[in-house]
Amino acid sequence: MSNKAVVLLSGGLDSATCLAVARSKGFESYCLSFDYGQRHRAELEAAGRVAAAHGAAEHRVLKLDLAQFGGSALTDTTIAVPTAGVQPGIPVTYVPARNTIMLSLALAWAEVLGSRDIFVGVNAVDYSGYPDCRPEYVAAFERLANLATKAGVEGARLTVHAPLIDLTKADIIRTGSALGVDYALTVSCYQADAAGHACGACDSCRLRREGFAAAGLVDPTRYATPV
Amino acid sequence: MSNKAVVLLSGGLDSATCLAVARSKGFESYCLSFDYGQRHRAELEAAGRVAAAHGAAEHRVLKLDLAQFGGSALTDTTIAVPTAGVQPGIPVTYVPARNTIMLSLALAWAEVLGSRDIFVGVNAVDYSGYPDCRPEYVAAFERLANLATKAGVEGARLTVHAPLIDLTKADIIRTGSALGVDYALTVSCYQADAAGHACGACDSCRLRREGFAAAGLVDPTRYATPV
Repeated sequence: MSNKAVVLLSGGLDSATCLAVARSKGFESYCLSFDYGQRHRAELEAAGRVAAAHGAAEHRVLKLDLAQFGGSALTDTTIAVPTAGVQPGIPVTYVPARNTIMLSLALAWAEVLGSRDIFVGVNAVDYSGYPDCRPEYVAAFERLANLATKAGVEGARLTVHAPLIDLTKADIIRTGSALGVDYALTVSCYQADAAGHACGACDSCRLRREGFAAAGLVDPTRYATPV
Repeated sequence: MSNKAVVLLSGGLDSATCLAVARSKGFESYCLSFDYGQRHRAELEAAGRVAAAHGAAEHRVLKLDLAQFGGSALTDTTIAVPTAGVQPGIPVTYVPARNTIMLSLALAWAEVLGSRDIFVGVNAVDYSGYPDCRPEYVAAFERLANLATKAGVEGARLTVHAPLIDLTKADIIRTGSALGVDYALTVSCYQADAAGHACGACDSCRLRREGFAAAGLVDPTRYATPV
């Protein structure tokens, strides 16, 4: 029985909370981040700070050029980042197959480490428009993982943990705060500046700010201009 | 209805046949190869030749450093490539989660292209020890793909085609030959030299050579030394 877990870590609020949850369950954390052609680097720097703050056994950043496929406002600079609040349908910030790709790479590392547990901070409440943030998607990936790998074939049970999937942003913030997450280390903004200051205007900033307000906690986010 | 298909193309015999099958079904082919830390580059050069020979609409090579995870004789130079014939169990040449990773990236590109069809040359006969070459694995990935993507959620049906899955090597060679595949362009060897000459000794070379013999066709493989 391995107590190693692979934790997908973006540097944002959700994945930092997810890492804290994995640790609170006694897992030794192997954090995986992706340099996937994000518009800004601040997120990856935040991931490194968060991994260090939570005593990760290891933090790897895998370079993966998703921008060459295009199709998302997060990787394609010709598509504008939305600031108008949540719209019906699938948002332009959706990166095609992103969670499938990241979970696949987490699965590869888990298999090499002998880990049976993957943690991912997906959330179906705030990201209801993203198909790959839904519980049925996570269940389908877990099923695939057990068919795809040596460990699964040999009878070990691989689990994909998505501890935030049903939580509101306020609940996520309360959970993480109780586990000692320092959210000042994290960057959620879709268009943070090089130093990691948040714009305060994009949908991700808005959700985050409203989450702190709803949780009744001080928002430690470093904004580019006071909001 | 899109007639674009994303075809995973390694440069080996199987994927070249798979591309020919996709074309024979009327698909416009968008070929995807991976520079994943293979021991040799000859395979990628072969992929380029095969894509060109079969009139691919596009051929992209995505860099993906799987070697940093280790765990396979194909990417980890500390593990010897087997030459002793097929052994029971999962071979050391199995790359953890490789097909899941490659199919995920194919899915991302398919989504951006508006394609509903992915072709993969997996084979359950010669690769019976690889969990991610089995029909139940392909079916599970197809199910995931339909849950994971905007297209799937919006009611388009994504299909993962694995036309070689039940074929013997001889049947694959007969199928491809009938469709005009020039197998001299392909490289299957696990340890080909820089010019693409096959060793003739590894399991992949052996399977390929036996396939031509069983198909009753001349083996056009360029070997490093006469076999």
